[in-house]
Amino acid sequence: MSPTQTAHLMDGTGTARRLVEESAGRAAELVRRTGSAPCLATVLVGEDPASVTYVRMKQARCAKAGIESRRVQLPAGTTTAELVAALRDLSQDASVHGILLQHPVGPHIDERAAFEAIAPEKDVDGVTMTSFGAMAFGLPGFVSCTPGGIMRLLDEYDVDVAGRHAVVVGRSAILGKPAGMLLLARDATVTYCHSRTADLSAYVREADIVVAAVGRPRLIRGEDIKPGAVVIDAGYNAGNVGDVDFDTAAERARLITPVPGGVGPMTIAVLLAQTVTAAYHQLGADLDRAIV
Amino acid sequence: MSPTQTAHLMDGTGTARRLVEESAGRAAELVRRTGSAPCLATVLVGEDPASVTYVRMKQARCAKAGIESRRVQLPAGTTTAELVAALRDLSQDASVHGILLQHPVGPHIDERAAFEAIAPEKDVDGVTMTSFGAMAFGLPGFVSCTPGGIMRLLDEYDVDVAGRHAVVVGRSAILGKPAGMLLLARDATVTYCHSRTADLSAYVREADIVVAAVGRPRLIRGEDIKPGAVVIDAGYNAGNVGDVDFDTAAERARLITPVPGGVGPMTIAVLLAQTVTAAYHQLGADLDRAIV
Repeated sequence: MSPTQTAHLMDGTGTARRLVEESAGRAAELVRRTGSAPCLATVLVGEDPASVTYVRMKQARCAKAGIESRRVQLPAGTTTAELVAALRDLSQDASVHGILLQHPVGPHIDERAAFEAIAPEKDVDGVTMTSFGAMAFGLPGFVSCTPGGIMRLLDEYDVDVAGRHAVVVGRSAILGKPAGMLLLARDATVTYCHSRTADLSAYVREADIVVAAVGRPRLIRGEDIKPGAVVIDAGYNAGNVGDVDFDTAAERARLITPVPGGVGPMTIAVLLAQTVTAAYHQLGADLDRAIV
Repeated sequence: MSPTQTAHLMDGTGTARRLVEESAGRAAELVRRTGSAPCLATVLVGEDPASVTYVRMKQARCAKAGIESRRVQLPAGTTTAELVAALRDLSQDASVHGILLQHPVGPHIDERAAFEAIAPEKDVDGVTMTSFGAMAFGLPGFVSCTPGGIMRLLDEYDVDVAGRHAVVVGRSAILGKPAGMLLLARDATVTYCHSRTADLSAYVREADIVVAAVGRPRLIRGEDIKPGAVVIDAGYNAGNVGDVDFDTAAERARLITPVPGGVGPMTIAVLLAQTVTAAYHQLGADLDRAIV
């Protein structure tokens, strides 16, 4: 690639649409076989406007894909014990196949305890420690949706990560950490950078694949992108700005995700796909194909 | 440090001895308080001579520390289902506080299924996915013994890993992967290298801390060690040879673990410490202090 050529965009919107269509087809097939549609329970604590919007959007996407959803709205003052009890009930409810606990749940709640109350077979958002272990060990299980979406995007663009150096910037439990584990399971050499990393630029400059997942606008500068690298921007900041300085990075990257329209749409698409898969498992229907 | 000065040795034998003494004191205190000693169940499938020796050694160390042990010897032809059943029984047996499944279990057994049959509160060897998730998320739980021993050694020698670049060579489920997660939880920038890594030397040369955990004799060459680095050799190969070329690495490292007498002795010491901690928890006794 010549220095003046700009990167190819990785089209998350189109890739997500195809994945949703595939999930809709599988959901319809499940209804034909069993009479039951997949059902996702969404659990929301309090009424944070952004969270309310996210949950509503997820339910709308479910509906379009032929996935039922059940909205569980709990008051802001819900205790950890009450939330755990609600999640345990859903875990035992045979009419619910997947459970999504909308993050964040508020500082007074032990979020980890809540996540762990989700049965692993219904953990379609990939937030339990069991799911994380499965990702890390390359075992069957549900993946965190955004990292799972990143892997699907890499596959869509035939990016072979084996033996390449992937630098993951960020180490959150639902994004950076699992993204690194999924890349490692695919034989990438993986470096985790974060807020305490000294000289972040030095690591980014060595990366064949950059995954930015830290939530700081334009933290990753184009001048640090290795020419020909693949740049995945999983950050989202106010004003449709990612963690990568897109314009300068696009001048050097071989492939890059835009914000919006890159990683973002993949998250819900993976959530829907995994919900359908969970329903197949729980309804005892043959699973035609792998998840994501 | 002048170029001709050699590294200080990290004394695993002495550090492990102190940890075992501490565990013995806590075990004795538990007996005084509750009338019960900690009990570790060791489960061995088949009669592989090395495994028989390891189990015997672990039991002998238990005995010296005032920890009871129960040896469960299963025939080589044991199936996965039989092994899982045995481990579930032990998980429910109130007189057993910790469970160790001696690795390897034989190729006909699904080792992961066996590990997952160990109740997390008795997983004193830190092999379950729940334990791995806890290590990764910085939550309370039992650590993999060898990585836990590495962290204890680093603490013993006041190595502050925050912000430093730790390169972990190897990605096994019980050594490389959890070691990296524990280092990341302590704010190191962590790179996982492995057999598919292109140009391992380039990564090692950038490392402030090297953890060699791959089982290939003298894979890490002294010429690649950054002057002043901390070198942890968790490899063990025939002939008392580690994964690091000790003589040349010691010329450049600030601190280095010998083989034998470095990481090796720490593994059993952490196993004993965690067994005592598990017993305190299960017997409802106050826990005086953190685990490792």
